[in-house]
Amino acid sequence: MPLVDIQLIEGVFDKSQKQAMIKKITDAMVEIESEAMRGVTWVRVHEVASGNWGIGGKGLTTADVKALQTQVR
Amino acid sequence: MPLVDIQLIEGVFDKSQKQAMIKKITDAMVEIESEAMRGVTWVRVHEVASGNWGIGGKGLTTADVKALQTQVR
Amino acid sequence: MPLVDIQLIEGVFDKSQKQAMIKKITDAMVEIESEAMRGVTWVRVHEVASGNWGIGGKGLTTADVKALQTQVR
Amino acid sequence: MPLVDIQLIEGVFDKSQKQAMIKKITDAMVEIESEAMRGVTWVRVHEVASGNWGIGGKGLTTADVKALQTQVR
Amino acid sequence: MPLVDIQLIEGVFDKSQKQAMIKKITDAMVEIESEAMRGVTWVRVHEVASGNWGIGGKGLTTADVKALQTQVR
Amino acid sequence: MPLVDIQLIEGVFDKSQKQAMIKKITDAMVEIESEAMRGVTWVRVHEVASGNWGIGGKGLTTADVKALQTQVR
Repeated sequence: MPLVDIQLIEGVFDKSQKQAMIKKITDAMVEIESEAMRGVTWVRVHEVASGNWGIGGKGLTTADVKALQTQVR
Repeated sequence: MPLVDIQLIEGVFDKSQKQAMIKKITDAMVEIESEAMRGVTWVRVHEVASGNWGIGGKGLTTADVKALQTQVR
Repeated sequence: MPLVDIQLIEGVFDKSQKQAMIKKITDAMVEIESEAMRGVTWVRVHEVASGNWGIGGKGLTTADVKALQTQVR
Repeated sequence: MPLVDIQLIEGVFDKSQKQAMIKKITDAMVEIESEAMRGVTWVRVHEVASGNWGIGGKGLTTADVKALQTQVR
Repeated sequence: MPLVDIQLIEGVFDKSQKQAMIKKITDAMVEIESEAMRGVTWVRVHEVASGNWGIGGKGLTTADVKALQTQVR
Repeated sequence: MPLVDIQLIEGVFDKSQKQAMIKKITDAMVEIESEAMRGVTWVRVHEVASGNWGIGGKGLTTADVKALQTQVR
């Protein structure tokens, strides 16, 4: 305890970005919960197939997310 | 909010059936919750490997489900 | 198989709306997968505590969702 | 997308710590994925009842976790 | 690793039965995976509200499950 | 009801070990809940990609788990 599950669309992030998520989120949790709990802090990454993550009824593809990432706000 | 997770055995449904699930279930949710929430209604499809979904202790395969679908009731 | 998990913020929907979600989503699934699979179609409703569902870093409350539902689009 | 689910034992963290988790983890995700995705970054907190989270076969209580937090390493 | 999540309808099992599930399932996992992994074998129990677990479109209550348990096969 | 989800790192266990988990855990559940519930006891196996299951901030690989399994305690 605790357990953190990160869920992504496959193909959006590369291996080093996924490792960075595990590291940064573990650090954020430990900062709040206490360093003594680092060894029992589990953070996992799961990926959903492109097209299988629907927002408003339309399945988002890997390409859709990549377009969204670079969008000027 | 809301989030709906549909879990299937892989290989039973094709891409267009999975898109139909996302669309129909989003519509069913929006009908109950209000059209204003469509944009924050997420519906995802996940697939479990053939043989890894046990009912009564026996792992169901893709072929088992396909046989079940066409069974005369 | 299949299993569908509906996730909501607690206190937004009443008992009859949650029963309607179970019924409508089961019907939507059976329509795609075959009536023969109705008995093994499981649909569950889970609720997350008010404030514990963050969007963009801010925890949504039951009141926030109720305001969103009635918003003019 | 993405969705992050934080799972805790109930009663270990107070409301402001849970809000801090949502905020810090959203910030960590956005830093990796792009600021443009903040609005579709969902981070949720779920709590498991005291005694229902087993490690090595023994159910951890809220008190067990509090003792672990303050342990000298 | 591994993690096992047991999901029940609330009020069907008492505290000692839930502890027995955690213990027996941990033992079953360790028997297959190796005794060396006991310390990183997590088994959790989650409960879904009575009426929120639909089978075939009808929400099962705690009473329905208790009736099913004692049914002559 | 009930549903049990077993989560593993991919490539650690072979097909027969995963079938043994489904069988043994179903038997353990039925022993506690009543034999009458065997038909509605679902046990599933899910696998997380090697490297995506972080403990203490470091992603565990299939090789790391295999080393851990054979470790002298």
